[in-house]
Amino acid sequence: MADDLISQIDAIFKPRSIAITGASDKKPKLGNMLLYNFIDIGFEGKLYPINPDEETVMGLKSYPSLKDIEDPVDLLVVSLHPDKVPQVIEEAAEKNVKGAIIFTSGYREQGDEGKKREEELVKIARKGTLRLIGPNCMGLYCPSTRLSFIPGLSRESGPIAFISQSGSLAMYIAMAGRIRGVAYSKLISLGNACDLDANDFLEYLGNDPQTGIIACYLEGVEDGQRFFRLAKQISKKKPIILWKVGRTSGGVKAAGSHTGSICGKKEIWDAVSKQAGLIRVENVYELFGVITALINPSLPKGNRVAIVSAPGGPAVSAADVCEQEGLKLAELSEYTKNKLSEIIPNLGTSTSNPIDLGFTVASDNTLYSRSTVLVGKDENVDMVLVYNFMMDKNFAEALIESEKKIGKRMAVVTNIGQVRERELDERFRSLDPEEMPRILKRLYESGISIHLTEQDAAKTLVSLSKYKAFLDKTGRAINS
Amino acid sequence: MADDLISQIDAIFKPRSIAITGASDKKPKLGNMLLYNFIDIGFEGKLYPINPDEETVMGLKSYPSLKDIEDPVDLLVVSLHPDKVPQVIEEAAEKNVKGAIIFTSGYREQGDEGKKREEELVKIARKGTLRLIGPNCMGLYCPSTRLSFIPGLSRESGPIAFISQSGSLAMYIAMAGRIRGVAYSKLISLGNACDLDANDFLEYLGNDPQTGIIACYLEGVEDGQRFFRLAKQISKKKPIILWKVGRTSGGVKAAGSHTGSICGKKEIWDAVSKQAGLIRVENVYELFGVITALINPSLPKGNRVAIVSAPGGPAVSAADVCEQEGLKLAELSEYTKNKLSEIIPNLGTSTSNPIDLGFTVASDNTLYSRSTVLVGKDENVDMVLVYNFMMDKNFAEALIESEKKIGKRMAVVTNIGQVRERELDERFRSLDPEEMPRILKRLYESGISIHLTEQDAAKTLVSLSKYKAFLDKTGRAINS
Repeated sequence: MADDLISQIDAIFKPRSIAITGASDKKPKLGNMLLYNFIDIGFEGKLYPINPDEETVMGLKSYPSLKDIEDPVDLLVVSLHPDKVPQVIEEAAEKNVKGAIIFTSGYREQGDEGKKREEELVKIARKGTLRLIGPNCMGLYCPSTRLSFIPGLSRESGPIAFISQSGSLAMYIAMAGRIRGVAYSKLISLGNACDLDANDFLEYLGNDPQTGIIACYLEGVEDGQRFFRLAKQISKKKPIILWKVGRTSGGVKAAGSHTGSICGKKEIWDAVSKQAGLIRVENVYELFGVITALINPSLPKGNRVAIVSAPGGPAVSAADVCEQEGLKLAELSEYTKNKLSEIIPNLGTSTSNPIDLGFTVASDNTLYSRSTVLVGKDENVDMVLVYNFMMDKNFAEALIESEKKIGKRMAVVTNIGQVRERELDERFRSLDPEEMPRILKRLYESGISIHLTEQDAAKTLVSLSKYKAFLDKTGRAINS
Repeated sequence: MADDLISQIDAIFKPRSIAITGASDKKPKLGNMLLYNFIDIGFEGKLYPINPDEETVMGLKSYPSLKDIEDPVDLLVVSLHPDKVPQVIEEAAEKNVKGAIIFTSGYREQGDEGKKREEELVKIARKGTLRLIGPNCMGLYCPSTRLSFIPGLSRESGPIAFISQSGSLAMYIAMAGRIRGVAYSKLISLGNACDLDANDFLEYLGNDPQTGIIACYLEGVEDGQRFFRLAKQISKKKPIILWKVGRTSGGVKAAGSHTGSICGKKEIWDAVSKQAGLIRVENVYELFGVITALINPSLPKGNRVAIVSAPGGPAVSAADVCEQEGLKLAELSEYTKNKLSEIIPNLGTSTSNPIDLGFTVASDNTLYSRSTVLVGKDENVDMVLVYNFMMDKNFAEALIESEKKIGKRMAVVTNIGQVRERELDERFRSLDPEEMPRILKRLYESGISIHLTEQDAAKTLVSLSKYKAFLDKTGRAINS
């Protein structure tokens, strides 16, 4: 049964042919984008527009209906009015189509009538071996097999999978990933999940060799027990990041009208998360921060953090936040302190943790990396938090070099998107938008995560520590 | 005495002449930047470099010592070695210099010896009417009188003052403000504050007609009672934002080696903040979010929030966060819901709060503003939280137009720094770095604050509500 499920979903991710309803050369329709997505990303199989009124659409031969297509169709994308959906699903079931992405809204999220319409669709699909994704969803992005749900996405694959009950969030994550140097294995916009649901995709991704990290945005799941069982098991080999909304009565109500979800009690989700080793986040920046930290699978051996910062104020703030979040400020050895005082000027600085580099970084841009290497090599230090207001290319390269020498996790608080009105100094080379994603990717792969605030960085380091503890306790480890 | 203090500090902010030690045409020295700052920002009074070894520095006549300058000097900037500082302070006291900014480090932050050296400087200053700023500080930025502590800052004045025990933070706030459309009345980097301290500047800014909002980054204050008294009193007419670090034992230790501060108990600061109506923040993004919300002085009449979002997932997340922070999700009137359903398509959307605009915003970019106006006019709504992944120019303009029609506070969650690799749509016009600050400023002035996360936006709206309650209770109000 599980094997069936996995091969069914696998077939949907690797279609040889796709039929798309609702595209037109004559009228601007949503179906146009849905068809164009596959052309844009370079889908290599057959594309079949379905439009009874037009001969061709976007230069492709158009078919009056699904059943008029002679060759097999593996995947169907539907954006028709709800009244017209049952018929095309019927045809798809008959034609042995493997999966249908139902973009159309107007189902469970609108109440009981809509829920019945969904159940009807599932009943029809079961006449064949057809599996449904949606309704009220964006569908799939899978760069390796050239599936996409929005134009302009990258063809590069990466280790991150994302299961999302929000379509717009899935799109944002896909687009923002391109800018932030994060590449994906599979992005799944579930919508109402009338058939294939979060648990099904979680099970699939747990077994997917392309996927190393699973992130989920969930409003609720139908079968909480199964989610817990799957999560606990998969967490032992792949980290799972969970952004669970619907934690308050207002959020619960909102989730109901968004995807018709039943959210479940906050306390239960918190307990499940803890037992299953899940990493919780609560907004897109936290999500990206944790993702960037997990791309390199090594985990800190303990929770003793050293802070290296040129600005003294943020160094103090970061020290506060690290302690609040449950990290220990590492006690540096006398050897390290002595070595630090050889390279850091003795005025306006501190060689105790947090290390305050002071003003000299402005004239000596190697100071960050030299200090980071010194504290990172200290045996009392498990990980390093580096604070620098803005990311530049030299700084990024120096971080990568430092990490090579210390082999410990680093979390960097910096702004990668800051626009500089004019360059203050020639030594400061901004990351230009073209090269930024490549450099960021190299940072992540080196075990250096990027965060916007000291709070995000500290929480992420705590998450890495806790995940390490979870793996140690459950007897499995993804790193040595 | 208080009047004395105010006129003393006022004279320091309006010097007619400044002497700067340590600048040189021959050797690159820190003093060069300190002198260049005033040239760069266009200081209109006299500048006197002090350098016994050179005839001229940066084209200005150089003097062997302070006492060799025949004309009066109002402000002195010192970056000499600690051993040489007492003498120049002695000369300044004799010469009736009004203020000295001591950039030099190596005082209280290094222990008891350093503390004694500071006390010695104050004793010397008291021989005249000289007041000291620092040591271990950056000094002052005051655009209206052309004082600056770093090159490249704006000459535009605004209502925000910032008192900072961190020099690098003061510099960052100054630079980032320029990009974010935030202009300042006065920025003060206090350093160790051996003479003029946070309380003195707080008292001054409370009386400063240029300053409408006071923000503070503090590690500790010498006289907690006085801080409380001043804060409570000033809060009644001007909001005070407090970023207090040194809340944990690690942070306390770090603050000690940063500026030699004694932090005080977290619980006391929390109680004082509540009683004095202070608005607390914990990182630079929260700080800017609250600043942008206070630029327009109007405050929400209650705590009922309406959420307007195109992405449905973030709408749910924002609803959660608003409730967690203590806001109420407004119950929209039937009239509003009916009107909304006339303009929002009935599929994949929600006309209940949170309003989920769904996909149609992609083809109809007036939907955000039309919906915002509808919900904003509802009498059950006190304020509106708008979520949109990215800020563009049309969106910004539409927000400003909407606010004019509803006259209620709006908090917008969006990314102003996002770099777009390519434009997906011609209708989407990115804010270019040149025009962004101007547009953002107009947003703030219209009562529209800008935040990076739903958490920051919700916290800020709560802060505005609480500040309103504080003003109501204390019988004074800054708005009608």
